[in-house]
Amino acid sequence: MSEENAVLFANEAFYLAIANRDVPAMNDIWGDDPVACLHPGWAALVGRADVLDSWERILSHDAAPKIVCREPRVLLHGDAAVVVCYEQIEGELLVATNVFRRAQRQWRMVHHQAGPTAARLSRQDAPGPAPKPN
Amino acid sequence: MSEENAVLFANEAFYLAIANRDVPAMNDIWGDDPVACLHPGWAALVGRADVLDSWERILSHDAAPKIVCREPRVLLHGDAAVVVCYEQIEGELLVATNVFRRAQRQWRMVHHQAGPTAARLSRQDAPGPAPKPN
Repeated sequence: MSEENAVLFANEAFYLAIANRDVPAMNDIWGDDPVACLHPGWAALVGRADVLDSWERILSHDAAPKIVCREPRVLLHGDAAVVVCYEQIEGELLVATNVFRRAQRQWRMVHHQAGPTAARLSRQDAPGPAPKPN
Repeated sequence: MSEENAVLFANEAFYLAIANRDVPAMNDIWGDDPVACLHPGWAALVGRADVLDSWERILSHDAAPKIVCREPRVLLHGDAAVVVCYEQIEGELLVATNVFRRAQRQWRMVHHQAGPTAARLSRQDAPGPAPKPN
């Protein structure tokens, strides 16, 4: 598996954990400190404990969001990688930054930010499965 | 200078280039590809040419934004670093992710995202100079 595909795999695991409301998976996906998470509209969360606590609260909520990742693009920077993607959330579209760090051959998330975008996806009106890694 | 301070310095140079509408400085601040930029509300820009073209258009505009960086926090990941900070823009507050990569002992920006936040700064009502690096 190429490094780019390995990062895409880690990125898909993140959205799968959200879809499955899988708190233990989310714990594995996030790396060790220093980590941070900027949920849309929230104040910045810095530190693994606060970040994972936020995800546990989000995923255990009855109204946990249904998010589909669209058009992920990987930007490799050695042992770090930035993924830029869109998040389709029940008709709304966000744009997201996911940062991963490679440790012991495994890519783990160290940063996430999502926020509004005016972008329109070409296939937004006909949602299907997320695109496969190239 | 510690690596953390070196990253804060690069982060401050980014906001200084915006304040001074300094396009050549912005060209120096951004690193080589792969780079990406998620301006608030825009579609994702991927690639140095598109990113720098966007900054040239923003900075050459008469209504170029006046942005003050607040509460920057550095998260070091080897040769990469994530800065989480708030951007105070004429009464509005955004939260931002700035990613830097170290190349030949110099930290250069490779990613930027800014988006809305409900956070309130303790000193938001009494703006002063940006806090100094710790």
